[in-house]
Amino acid sequence: MSIVVVGSVAFDSITSPSGKADNVLGGSATYFALAASYFTEVRLVAVVGEDFTAENEGVFRKRGVDTRGIEHAKGKTFRWGGTYSGNLNEAKSDFTDLNVFETFHPRIPSAYEDTQFLFLANIQPTLQVNVRRQMNGVRLTGCDTMNYWIKGTPKELAETLKVVNILLINDTETKMLAGESNLPRAANKVLAMGPQALVVKHGEYGATIFFREGAFGIGHHPFRAPALPIEEVKDPTGAGDSFAGGFMGYIASQGELNREVLKRALFYGGVMGSFAVERFGTERLQSLTRDEIEVRFQVFRELTHLQ
Amino acid sequence: MSIVVVGSVAFDSITSPSGKADNVLGGSATYFALAASYFTEVRLVAVVGEDFTAENEGVFRKRGVDTRGIEHAKGKTFRWGGTYSGNLNEAKSDFTDLNVFETFHPRIPSAYEDTQFLFLANIQPTLQVNVRRQMNGVRLTGCDTMNYWIKGTPKELAETLKVVNILLINDTETKMLAGESNLPRAANKVLAMGPQALVVKHGEYGATIFFREGAFGIGHHPFRAPALPIEEVKDPTGAGDSFAGGFMGYIASQGELNREVLKRALFYGGVMGSFAVERFGTERLQSLTRDEIEVRFQVFRELTHLQ
Repeated sequence: MSIVVVGSVAFDSITSPSGKADNVLGGSATYFALAASYFTEVRLVAVVGEDFTAENEGVFRKRGVDTRGIEHAKGKTFRWGGTYSGNLNEAKSDFTDLNVFETFHPRIPSAYEDTQFLFLANIQPTLQVNVRRQMNGVRLTGCDTMNYWIKGTPKELAETLKVVNILLINDTETKMLAGESNLPRAANKVLAMGPQALVVKHGEYGATIFFREGAFGIGHHPFRAPALPIEEVKDPTGAGDSFAGGFMGYIASQGELNREVLKRALFYGGVMGSFAVERFGTERLQSLTRDEIEVRFQVFRELTHLQ
Repeated sequence: MSIVVVGSVAFDSITSPSGKADNVLGGSATYFALAASYFTEVRLVAVVGEDFTAENEGVFRKRGVDTRGIEHAKGKTFRWGGTYSGNLNEAKSDFTDLNVFETFHPRIPSAYEDTQFLFLANIQPTLQVNVRRQMNGVRLTGCDTMNYWIKGTPKELAETLKVVNILLINDTETKMLAGESNLPRAANKVLAMGPQALVVKHGEYGATIFFREGAFGIGHHPFRAPALPIEEVKDPTGAGDSFAGGFMGYIASQGELNREVLKRALFYGGVMGSFAVERFGTERLQSLTRDEIEVRFQVFRELTHLQ
């Protein structure tokens, strides 16, 4: 089954202890689309400027990503610059030029309307709701957000949470959204806001999926998947979106939605996140093979499984 | 096989968001001994003062812990007061009265000398080395330490690390000891200092065991075990020592030391840590059954294992 992703396409300038990269293709929808493309057909909805080249579009095309939903607007593509230091957990933004992204009003092409899976990457919550409303046939919607929207537009975000099935955010965002410092209690509060499942990303410690009682008919117990201890993280940019791409892409690739599918999806999320950070920008995600992904899936399994 | 633990016995006064407890039995050796007692015979080496009652000793006796190694000194037992707030990850010390612990020079009773497993809880590194030297027949030594010794007595700690097999510390301590912010790289540096294995405790995210190449003849790949997402952490005191008790106690209970034993030991460590924090002080650890432990082991397995 195919999946639509709506989010940003950007040019990133990244500095980390391992080096730097200027004006490389990035953005939440880009990382998501490339990661998910190893599992299923991905349909992209985003906006780019006149500086977005055929070569840039070729990165998506080579991975079979449907680019008919890319809107070409007058002006420049979204540009972001960030610097990582120390523990690499958080970037200091050097600049954020929204450019054409500032007035982005995502429109779902009619060719995408029958898509059954949807991922709303991190954009303004009202835009997320509008996209969801344009896609009535959707079976499962995943969603990301961030502290900026949790603090700045809580009412709009509350509306979004009512129409999504799975929310994917990190520990800090979960606790902030719930106003609660204990993680499982915070998770229950977030689930009461709408989504049937909440994936909390723990960075280098992996991720946990929490379920609302009765969600998907699979019971209430959480499940936890690891992250790989990686000796050289070159560039953490896009790790969360790549995680979401692996997670949602694997779900969309399966016929049915059950507990085992969601558990494996969490592992594939971790696998794709671990690949993303090994090189600058999307370099590693452009040239993977399904075999490499399966080998790393087995490494994750061995990292955590008793005999 | 039995195990000797050397560390502190104390009276703790603890305040947390869930309430408070005054002058309850605590200390690193206490938590370790009670947790390990569900797996194997534990022999305790510690010092107490004149305020240590027969009732206090009864707590150990009821769990079959050998208390012949408790030295009764003139004066008061070690007392510690701490307050947890917010995320419960760190206690603010309200007071630390070392009392008889200040001049503690652990002596191994001759009845303990043939013990094959040893755990050096968090005490001054030179005392740890001296204990290790008193026990020539030991097969496996586990060891804890803390930032106070890492910063304050690095040379003494370096000597200790040469004579222990498994070091159990947390993320911050690992990075501080190695002078390296990337965890797997820091782990490799610590392993180069002496121990064959390093258990890094991640608090609510579980723990990872890293192995020196060729250690125990079981290869180099790390293994990660979860912690249980717990809705009500009443008192985090002793979680790390209880983890160590479950981990080392299970190892001592097994005839041979292989990869599978170490993996399961990491799970049992997490299990015992999760019980410890459910009540104030050692209350929960005093009244467990092996059945309850096995049930929770299965919960940990289901939390992390694919079909």
